[in-house]
Amino acid sequence: MRIVGIDPGYAIVGYGAIDFNGHAFRPVAFGAVLTEAHTPFTDRLMQIEDELTEFFQLAKPDALAIEKLYFTNNKTTAIDVAQARGVTLLAAARLGIPIYEYTPMQVKMAVVGYGKAEKAQVMEMTRLILGLDHLPKPDDTADALAIAICHGHTAASNFGQIHARTMRK
Amino acid sequence: MRIVGIDPGYAIVGYGAIDFNGHAFRPVAFGAVLTEAHTPFTDRLMQIEDELTEFFQLAKPDALAIEKLYFTNNKTTAIDVAQARGVTLLAAARLGIPIYEYTPMQVKMAVVGYGKAEKAQVMEMTRLILGLDHLPKPDDTADALAIAICHGHTAASNFGQIHARTMRK
Repeated sequence: MRIVGIDPGYAIVGYGAIDFNGHAFRPVAFGAVLTEAHTPFTDRLMQIEDELTEFFQLAKPDALAIEKLYFTNNKTTAIDVAQARGVTLLAAARLGIPIYEYTPMQVKMAVVGYGKAEKAQVMEMTRLILGLDHLPKPDDTADALAIAICHGHTAASNFGQIHARTMRK
Repeated sequence: MRIVGIDPGYAIVGYGAIDFNGHAFRPVAFGAVLTEAHTPFTDRLMQIEDELTEFFQLAKPDALAIEKLYFTNNKTTAIDVAQARGVTLLAAARLGIPIYEYTPMQVKMAVVGYGKAEKAQVMEMTRLILGLDHLPKPDDTADALAIAICHGHTAASNFGQIHARTMRK
């Protein structure tokens, strides 16, 4: 199963594709859309749609995992992140990619096994799980890979449950 | 000058095209994108992009005026409104339509002349300015027409300022 993870944003959109065979993960390709500050916001939205569409077409994922948004202190930024996330969802939907959403706590649970894990722990476990010498920069790309791992674990454990239920019959 | 006004949303996106000759307004076409509840959010985003693109292509506006978003009490709804607004901006940007944003207070100032006007006053003035027997439903469509009027007034008064400055030389 090929999974693309996305860390949503408008200045930086982290993305990463990984393969998961039910046991092990393998990194495939990753990066980030970087949009210029002081350019019209709509130019940034169009760049996000263009670059993500290109990445999705190359990666051909079976699923897209993306972080859920919550409103925090910086409400002005949050609106723009949400607007860019809408365009991100649209790009995936136009290609018919199934979309799954995870909270930061679900990602931490899946990657570290502890929902209140520190960011550094999540990063280090992501590196180990993917067998990388060092994690890619920016952090948004590493976060995207963690979100993709979260979907792999979740999909695998759902499969496990269904399988166990079938076995019990 | 042809102006399209947009009242952003995800369940309902109000839109309205008006013509403004610097003195009088004329309604051209208006309506709303209505997306079904209980359908995947990404289907709603695609419908919004499709229907707005079609409307923009028919209306061929010189400018698009859209309400600015603020975060209110219902944060969950606000995220989805912002996500849909991102797709709305994208649809206009793809067609090269210049986009202008106005706060609710600016719209009230422009239409009624008072920034804290009641909604009913804004609606009634919109109806009178456009010479309509009754305002279209849903309210989102009427709101979109008010936002379009706001842009017309603002563009006209900016033009007036530039003109006055030129005359003084």
